[in-house]
Amino acid sequence: MKLDHVGIAVHSIEAAVRSYQQIGFTLDEIVTIEEQKVRVAVLAADGSRVELLEPAGAGSPIQKYLEKRGEGIHHLCFQVSDLRQKIEELRAASMQLISLPSQTGLEGRKIAFLHPKSAHGALIELVECESQGSVQHSSKS
Amino acid sequence: MKLDHVGIAVHSIEAAVRSYQQIGFTLDEIVTIEEQKVRVAVLAADGSRVELLEPAGAGSPIQKYLEKRGEGIHHLCFQVSDLRQKIEELRAASMQLISLPSQTGLEGRKIAFLHPKSAHGALIELVECESQGSVQHSSKS
Repeated sequence: MKLDHVGIAVHSIEAAVRSYQQIGFTLDEIVTIEEQKVRVAVLAADGSRVELLEPAGAGSPIQKYLEKRGEGIHHLCFQVSDLRQKIEELRAASMQLISLPSQTGLEGRKIAFLHPKSAHGALIELVECESQGSVQHSSKS
Repeated sequence: MKLDHVGIAVHSIEAAVRSYQQIGFTLDEIVTIEEQKVRVAVLAADGSRVELLEPAGAGSPIQKYLEKRGEGIHHLCFQVSDLRQKIEELRAASMQLISLPSQTGLEGRKIAFLHPKSAHGALIELVECESQGSVQHSSKS
């Protein structure tokens, strides 16, 4: 359950990247996840990762979030070693999960989302990492 | 600029702690910061720290947040080695900081807040840590 990244919803990745670079982050990459209709800028500072999320296409969940809440912290993502087992544990505790059109996130990792109702307003993403605790970015190789 | 913790605004710490324990966090301590009118439950999972924030007293900033936005992710806190230097750098980059009644956070650490306007809607706290990168909790000793 180590924190993997924090997702921040923004209108324009270009404008937001400039601000976050001024705050002290470095830009790793900008990618688009077509299935989730989101364009993502991955930034990091001392191993802490922030993802800026921009809507990509009609019906983007990020677009809906921006219309309702404006720019801001969108979700927290935690690493788990076995996502299916974790989901079973959460369901057994009557926690509500969000049904996604795709269960695949950045770099093809398996993901799930806990409903904000089950986490006092916070949207929590879970991502399966083989070596939970170390964030490996191998997509560029 | 390593992430120190994520702050989540909640109506009731007791109810929220139960949920976060079910998600996989363990409770470290519950403390009240009178100056900031906030009651804080510190939880952790694999070194990642979450603080549940409950209003404590009239005029609590957390109360105002809850009335406006409801429960949810309130702020991100990053560690810096020299807070005064960091503040100077941010001001030089025309970043807006929030004036606080007290610049002291949990365990007497020096803190500052960057205005959400300067971070695309995210409230960012900065905390000075002598050994930036390792979170030491020595207040109980």
